[in-house]
Amino acid sequence: MTIGLSTLSAQQLQIGVSYYPEHVSREIWPADFQKMKDAGIKRIRIGEFAWSSMEPEQGDFQWNWLDEAIDLAAEYGIQVVLCTPTAAPPVWLSDQHPETLPVNEIGYRNPYGCRQHRCYNTPAYQKHSDLIVTGLARRYGDHPNVVAWQLDNEFGGEQKFCYCDYCKEEFQEFLRSKYGSIEELNRRWINTFWSEEYQRFDQIKTPGRYQATLWLKNHPSLELEFSRFSSHSIVDFANSQVSIIRQYAPEQPITTNRSTFAWGDNLEWYPIVENLDVAGFDLYSDKPYELAFYADFNRSLKQGRSWLMEFSVHSKDLYRDLGMMQARGVDWLFFFTFNPFPAGQEQGMKSLLTITGEATGNYHTLGKWTREQPEVTPLDEPEIGLVYDFESSWVYYIQTWGDYTDRLIYSDYLLHRVYKKLYRPDVAIRIQSPRQSMDGLKVILLPKQILYNTDLETNLEEFIHQGGTAIITNDFFWKNRDNVYLTELPGFYTRVLGVEDNNFIHTEEGAPLVLREQVYGKGKVVMVNRNADDKGWSEIIDKYVY
Amino acid sequence: MTIGLSTLSAQQLQIGVSYYPEHVSREIWPADFQKMKDAGIKRIRIGEFAWSSMEPEQGDFQWNWLDEAIDLAAEYGIQVVLCTPTAAPPVWLSDQHPETLPVNEIGYRNPYGCRQHRCYNTPAYQKHSDLIVTGLARRYGDHPNVVAWQLDNEFGGEQKFCYCDYCKEEFQEFLRSKYGSIEELNRRWINTFWSEEYQRFDQIKTPGRYQATLWLKNHPSLELEFSRFSSHSIVDFANSQVSIIRQYAPEQPITTNRSTFAWGDNLEWYPIVENLDVAGFDLYSDKPYELAFYADFNRSLKQGRSWLMEFSVHSKDLYRDLGMMQARGVDWLFFFTFNPFPAGQEQGMKSLLTITGEATGNYHTLGKWTREQPEVTPLDEPEIGLVYDFESSWVYYIQTWGDYTDRLIYSDYLLHRVYKKLYRPDVAIRIQSPRQSMDGLKVILLPKQILYNTDLETNLEEFIHQGGTAIITNDFFWKNRDNVYLTELPGFYTRVLGVEDNNFIHTEEGAPLVLREQVYGKGKVVMVNRNADDKGWSEIIDKYVY
Amino acid sequence: MTIGLSTLSAQQLQIGVSYYPEHVSREIWPADFQKMKDAGIKRIRIGEFAWSSMEPEQGDFQWNWLDEAIDLAAEYGIQVVLCTPTAAPPVWLSDQHPETLPVNEIGYRNPYGCRQHRCYNTPAYQKHSDLIVTGLARRYGDHPNVVAWQLDNEFGGEQKFCYCDYCKEEFQEFLRSKYGSIEELNRRWINTFWSEEYQRFDQIKTPGRYQATLWLKNHPSLELEFSRFSSHSIVDFANSQVSIIRQYAPEQPITTNRSTFAWGDNLEWYPIVENLDVAGFDLYSDKPYELAFYADFNRSLKQGRSWLMEFSVHSKDLYRDLGMMQARGVDWLFFFTFNPFPAGQEQGMKSLLTITGEATGNYHTLGKWTREQPEVTPLDEPEIGLVYDFESSWVYYIQTWGDYTDRLIYSDYLLHRVYKKLYRPDVAIRIQSPRQSMDGLKVILLPKQILYNTDLETNLEEFIHQGGTAIITNDFFWKNRDNVYLTELPGFYTRVLGVEDNNFIHTEEGAPLVLREQVYGKGKVVMVNRNADDKGWSEIIDKYVY
Repeated sequence: MTIGLSTLSAQQLQIGVSYYPEHVSREIWPADFQKMKDAGIKRIRIGEFAWSSMEPEQGDFQWNWLDEAIDLAAEYGIQVVLCTPTAAPPVWLSDQHPETLPVNEIGYRNPYGCRQHRCYNTPAYQKHSDLIVTGLARRYGDHPNVVAWQLDNEFGGEQKFCYCDYCKEEFQEFLRSKYGSIEELNRRWINTFWSEEYQRFDQIKTPGRYQATLWLKNHPSLELEFSRFSSHSIVDFANSQVSIIRQYAPEQPITTNRSTFAWGDNLEWYPIVENLDVAGFDLYSDKPYELAFYADFNRSLKQGRSWLMEFSVHSKDLYRDLGMMQARGVDWLFFFTFNPFPAGQEQGMKSLLTITGEATGNYHTLGKWTREQPEVTPLDEPEIGLVYDFESSWVYYIQTWGDYTDRLIYSDYLLHRVYKKLYRPDVAIRIQSPRQSMDGLKVILLPKQILYNTDLETNLEEFIHQGGTAIITNDFFWKNRDNVYLTELPGFYTRVLGVEDNNFIHTEEGAPLVLREQVYGKGKVVMVNRNADDKGWSEIIDKYVY
Repeated sequence: MTIGLSTLSAQQLQIGVSYYPEHVSREIWPADFQKMKDAGIKRIRIGEFAWSSMEPEQGDFQWNWLDEAIDLAAEYGIQVVLCTPTAAPPVWLSDQHPETLPVNEIGYRNPYGCRQHRCYNTPAYQKHSDLIVTGLARRYGDHPNVVAWQLDNEFGGEQKFCYCDYCKEEFQEFLRSKYGSIEELNRRWINTFWSEEYQRFDQIKTPGRYQATLWLKNHPSLELEFSRFSSHSIVDFANSQVSIIRQYAPEQPITTNRSTFAWGDNLEWYPIVENLDVAGFDLYSDKPYELAFYADFNRSLKQGRSWLMEFSVHSKDLYRDLGMMQARGVDWLFFFTFNPFPAGQEQGMKSLLTITGEATGNYHTLGKWTREQPEVTPLDEPEIGLVYDFESSWVYYIQTWGDYTDRLIYSDYLLHRVYKKLYRPDVAIRIQSPRQSMDGLKVILLPKQILYNTDLETNLEEFIHQGGTAIITNDFFWKNRDNVYLTELPGFYTRVLGVEDNNFIHTEEGAPLVLREQVYGKGKVVMVNRNADDKGWSEIIDKYVY
Repeated sequence: MTIGLSTLSAQQLQIGVSYYPEHVSREIWPADFQKMKDAGIKRIRIGEFAWSSMEPEQGDFQWNWLDEAIDLAAEYGIQVVLCTPTAAPPVWLSDQHPETLPVNEIGYRNPYGCRQHRCYNTPAYQKHSDLIVTGLARRYGDHPNVVAWQLDNEFGGEQKFCYCDYCKEEFQEFLRSKYGSIEELNRRWINTFWSEEYQRFDQIKTPGRYQATLWLKNHPSLELEFSRFSSHSIVDFANSQVSIIRQYAPEQPITTNRSTFAWGDNLEWYPIVENLDVAGFDLYSDKPYELAFYADFNRSLKQGRSWLMEFSVHSKDLYRDLGMMQARGVDWLFFFTFNPFPAGQEQGMKSLLTITGEATGNYHTLGKWTREQPEVTPLDEPEIGLVYDFESSWVYYIQTWGDYTDRLIYSDYLLHRVYKKLYRPDVAIRIQSPRQSMDGLKVILLPKQILYNTDLETNLEEFIHQGGTAIITNDFFWKNRDNVYLTELPGFYTRVLGVEDNNFIHTEEGAPLVLREQVYGKGKVVMVNRNADDKGWSEIIDKYVY
């Protein structure tokens, strides 16, 4: 498959915007497109959430309005990124197939009427999703003004987990094929604890919540496998859309819009992006280090193919922020959104125009940017790496799932504690999977890398031996991928750290910031107290990174 | 229908009290009535919640105890306000008709055993409510010692919304008759947003809660219509009780006891009170400005027919508070309650007597008041008006329904921010509906009047033109009554405010307190920053009101 | 029945530990036992939660592993306290009998997969519990290395209340046999309040929660009876295990491990312990006064037979704490636990060994203690008493059940406010039931003794008359045991306190610390303001106790 790379990469950061032609009458489109053109906007994202306009009754596909919108945009020199509308199934789907509505952790089937109301594992949802995506791809797969595709919207956002019977059966199958026998699962999870031994796979349920007077948690191995399964379900769903689109639109690159981790990192993004042509992300923030973090992460995922699919219009220094995004490798940046929604759940949200259609300050700033096309030097290739491990995040999430305020401790720690201190306006960081090679790096940080991983152990040992500096916290490699604590020290501890026991697990109050600093080969490893605060990380980074 | 006005209005504030003869044996009544008489108490409210004493088995009406209580009260010179007991259906009703128990927003049918356990739209509840009210009205409609009626108790209090199937069907019918066609509803709500278009009215559900990991809200137009529908259901229920009582008791005035807005303003009170003879309210507060607010509101509803149906015994300066109530037009004031409940959900609540029957300090103060009958000058007719719009309150409630701590922002704002600063001991304020005439006023305040209303626009324009001062906040008229933002400026903005765009919607941080002050005709309009704090409102009121 | 007392009481505090042989392979046992022996550990608690290892399939009892563990322990000089595993039923039970899973207060049936997932009133649970206990007792009732039994684990912990249909029927029967007629129940609860009169016992439900927009509580008399019923259900269940064990193991003492009251005092412990040979408790705290409180309480329950069944390994001065436990009458102290759980809900918890098997600091401290066997003088017999009334605690719990943060006000008040100030390192306090004799005491404190009790009234009056000092708070004897306020002053008020009215119920703000101090006979009674804070209790105790 050949991707038209020319459509991917831009010398200069280019500007797009979200647009919802189906919300307004066609008479309004020309004026909107003209205002876009005036500001130098070159692309629109459309189709997202428009399923009921594309297929108002089951099987009755309506493409005219979309044909017209895409063609009219072309007249104004505006290209189209077409979105699959599958995050918002129409009422007829849940009406005929109530089983497509997700069930929450206490067995409550959520009602129709919001968005994300779909269980990824329900056959009826999968079937109708395939049908609408096929319809779209077949009609627009070779349309000259459709230059790229976006899958769905913010996978794994509000609707992260479903506990319905379809999911239960798929989950049991997932476990059966992974563990082979129930004895093996019982053995690895040590299910003799609290008599939690299963006799058969069909006894294992999705981990619904026990709601007693006091809080009872589920088995952490069960929870981790369910997190993994839930993530896999979304990855499979995304990949099935990719296959359909590739079949009809082999030349058009595909992306999706990942939400920030404050909204959820319950989805393993590496395998999703691997199968895409472009890495895309959404970002609502005005903290420079946070903008940098997500731009760095996105570039690390797909070097040279990094798009910011939704960017809020709130920036207080938009000109500067656009420059920053360009410096960190963003090729296309789409604002959210062009004009405010008068109705619906997001009504009144600040946009490039006011609710009555006047230009806002940032509309003008944006126009200035597209006219001036300022020169921005891209940052150098990163020599500092940061490992982001979704599964380690889930392990921390599971430890605290009773308390949603602590829920995102991993992503908070990595972004708001570690990266915040790593951040320099002129330095890009490589943010990478625990399985990825460390070639090209001089320093790598692995805070809260609690899960053991053979590949990572081997790579890291080699990296240090060859002269690299590794910074870990003292929860490093505590647990295996079954979410079970290791009862023997992994080789990294004995060989690299020169440690013989595991008293690090319970760091005493008052323990020092650096628990161990050990030379190994030509490099070294530094073990940081995992309770290190902002000041501590500042010291660590000043001393060992820059 | 002729109301015996002589029973309504008193020169001097008169005192009554709640009493529950059915809680104690008859031997105790004489001593209680004697203690009331000694304190100068002239009326009792009885019957509230006494359904199971009136109809212990379905259809077995027991009036003897009530006959005796009413007759015995007469012997002590104590008149009776008789309450319909419909806020506390007996166990046999939910036993035979579990469908009368309300269903909450996640489909949970509430159990029997508290109060307010009734869905206003269930035929069985309506039928048995009609039967008990008919029974009461027929027996006591011409009783010489029954001087007035109270409907139910605190309509719209704890049990505000029901999501059962009866409500669903009624709600669909409500929408069908209002919108005519589903296309019209889709168009007005802009249901293309998130593919929320309906095909038929029977697909529209009561807005149950979506409970995902992250919070998803319902469509704001759906929520507003459901709030309106829920309010209408209560209004209809109240009116059906009024019709029955009027049939048998044409000479006896009817009221009900409205709760304060901290407890809920989910019910549109204007149409309820319009159909009553007396405006009644409950009040548990010791803040002078709060006492004044509710007394003013009640008098504005029914000039000269204002009763305080429940007043707490906690006042630290009862003599002063009674004078204040009289000055603000309260004719009758009923304490809650005479003696503490030993048992039940309200057990131990402070009352006029102690739990062992001794007089409290306020029992003595009350006696002093009734003996001295102090002269109190009524306050002058108000020249300052404040608009209280229940629907605007709902709009704000809906915006925040995920967060109950912010739930009552509208009533809090109007009472605790604006009225608090308007309050002067010797000034009465007229608190009125957005549809009411502004005749007689010099200044009118419309804080947080977010909903557009043609009548209000016309009246207000005329009021200002003739010399009035109007004080609005910058969320004025943002939305139409479908809870959809206006995308064209209403005429009031262009004609009166002289404004051409709608950039007011997003007030920037640091925006000034007064956003616009505009002369129009002989009067003027002042647009205040809606984020104005206590100090800001103090300035506004000092400058523009007094 | 003769209990081998020699196994109960130790001159010197002896040390045991929790152990879970079923979690690891048998090859590991010898090394573990050796490490225990090295530290001077003489007993292990085993079997707790091991039901699925004992009976992996229904009726298929597997004793071999347990035989071997017990026999191997003997080889190392380690005795066994055998626990019934009934707090963790295997999956086959809920699989075949879903009705054994508890139902919560909104009718949600909790899922399998944690612990405590059992309704005490379900026949299937009772039957299989009896079978496993019978199996255990028959096999090990005369085993020379099994020296004692522990029932279940922390009765009334996470799973306090069940609202299933079995419970409903048992609860109705409980009420029927207590009240005799529904008229009597209605009369005593004053169910005319809010029309809550029942027609038949079968209409009374377990007090499920009413979930309206605003909070509605259940009838307090219903809630108290349900608390009492729930406690009785657990007491009955415990006693049925005692009967079975006594039949097969007449020589082996029986205990159970009570959790601290921060975890719940929803269970009336006096009748449970009365039927046991040894009082046992669990304790996770490092506050000296809290250690003292629970040790005192336990000793007061069974003088000379006081075991600490679970003690955390977190102590920062373990040597001191062991001495303190010995001085306060603890004979055996079992640590929790020997080695950390790698998996399951309690994974990673700090233990005597690290996760990789190394000795921790407290392992060494413990060894020092067992080697040195330091002399510790037992504290003198208490002359100060504190009454702990579980039912008064429930009354306070019911008053606040809407707000879990206030839930444990009674136990918090008694421990963290009163006992904290009573605490002296060298003084033991007798903590006793309101029914127990006050012989031997000089002072008795009865804070928050809200429930009236004839025996207590008589005993207390006699105690004071004979020269004792009683310290009460002003909520003393406010309510009868139906959770209804007394409307006549109890004799204690008139005779002993010399009080004629009950204005104490509503203590005014600013009321003094001591509301009344009254000499009676040779002694006196002091009524303290129930809102007394830490400082207030400090003054009271300095003035009247020491």
